[in-house]
Amino acid sequence: MILLYHFFLSPGSRRVRLLLAEKKLPFKCKVEKYWQRNESFLALNPAGTVPVMLDADGTRICGSQVICEYLAEMYDDTPSFLGVGAVERAEVRRLVAWFDEKFQHEISNILLAEKVMKSMLRKGQPSATALRASHRNIHTHLAYITWLVERRSWLAGEAITLADFAAAAQISCVDYLGDIPWIDYPKVKDWYVRIKSRPSFRPLLRDQIAGLFAPSHYADLDF
Amino acid sequence: MILLYHFFLSPGSRRVRLLLAEKKLPFKCKVEKYWQRNESFLALNPAGTVPVMLDADGTRICGSQVICEYLAEMYDDTPSFLGVGAVERAEVRRLVAWFDEKFQHEISNILLAEKVMKSMLRKGQPSATALRASHRNIHTHLAYITWLVERRSWLAGEAITLADFAAAAQISCVDYLGDIPWIDYPKVKDWYVRIKSRPSFRPLLRDQIAGLFAPSHYADLDF
Repeated sequence: MILLYHFFLSPGSRRVRLLLAEKKLPFKCKVEKYWQRNESFLALNPAGTVPVMLDADGTRICGSQVICEYLAEMYDDTPSFLGVGAVERAEVRRLVAWFDEKFQHEISNILLAEKVMKSMLRKGQPSATALRASHRNIHTHLAYITWLVERRSWLAGEAITLADFAAAAQISCVDYLGDIPWIDYPKVKDWYVRIKSRPSFRPLLRDQIAGLFAPSHYADLDF
Repeated sequence: MILLYHFFLSPGSRRVRLLLAEKKLPFKCKVEKYWQRNESFLALNPAGTVPVMLDADGTRICGSQVICEYLAEMYDDTPSFLGVGAVERAEVRRLVAWFDEKFQHEISNILLAEKVMKSMLRKGQPSATALRASHRNIHTHLAYITWLVERRSWLAGEAITLADFAAAAQISCVDYLGDIPWIDYPKVKDWYVRIKSRPSFRPLLRDQIAGLFAPSHYADLDF
């Protein structure tokens, strides 16, 4: 069986969990405290990051987009969620990179470092300046998602793709921390409700981090 | 003809230039001062980053790895440099992500911001602390490349791939700034000489940024 090394609030890990579930591939998860830089984990992925996937035959694949491309190639009897044709796939990959890089660096990484890591490692209070910067950035991204869903059924076009999983994975982590201003972005909320209602999303809504509780609307499909 | 919006010291742009040349696809380059956030460019790529490629038919593709995957699919009568088989491709993509993300964030972005942008935008002197941090990080990466080339002919295996282009593109930008400690890493130098000697690399060695001169060894194949 596939084994996935992940962490609850790693958006890349969440994206792979969504994809594996949507492809109906059975898999087990193992929480990796990657910041501890355990030697056995570094031997698997010298970059020291999650997700890392061990395929059923032991093949090791590192990194969320690398895993998604690998799953598209190796398990091509189930949907790839990469789009149809080179141009559509380029649009899906552009948006995946948008959320993996831009959203992650401008929002998720900051909130994770300030609100989760500082608390877990007892390194003091979050920096108000950093939190303010990430909260400002959220608006740009939610406005961009609004622009997209006003023009398309899903982020990259008429079908649900990895772009939706990548965006929803990021947003779900930020929502766990209570930092999505839903009230101002009803169209983003509509899109998120659609993806949140999928069976593949259920395990993500059950994630619980010790000492850090999600707001009550987090797991509510009808929030 | 393909048109590539790029910037001289953008490692992602350099990687695409290498790939296009290796695939022997004719293309024109247009320098984009992406930090000026020109409206016409933002309409092409709302992320505001280079590279952006316009294919001969006008199709717009944003982002270095997205462009490389698109070229592999659309121009499959020439080598993809992505490796053969899903497992080899996963190793190539892992290393590409290593250099695109880890090397870029830990080294190139810092040096570019401190040494190039501050000077171009007249924003003062480079921060000594930031430069020291990036110089420390260089050693980790050059040691990792050493480890790889002690075991393989090229970074991802026995054939040259996008992993080599991604690494060499990053290193060439840092080398333009005179910040690669070549003397300590002879095996990295041997590998770099091999890739630097390829005809595809020549245009990169001719790049000149106004007011910022590369050290004399930069364009020397026999340095």
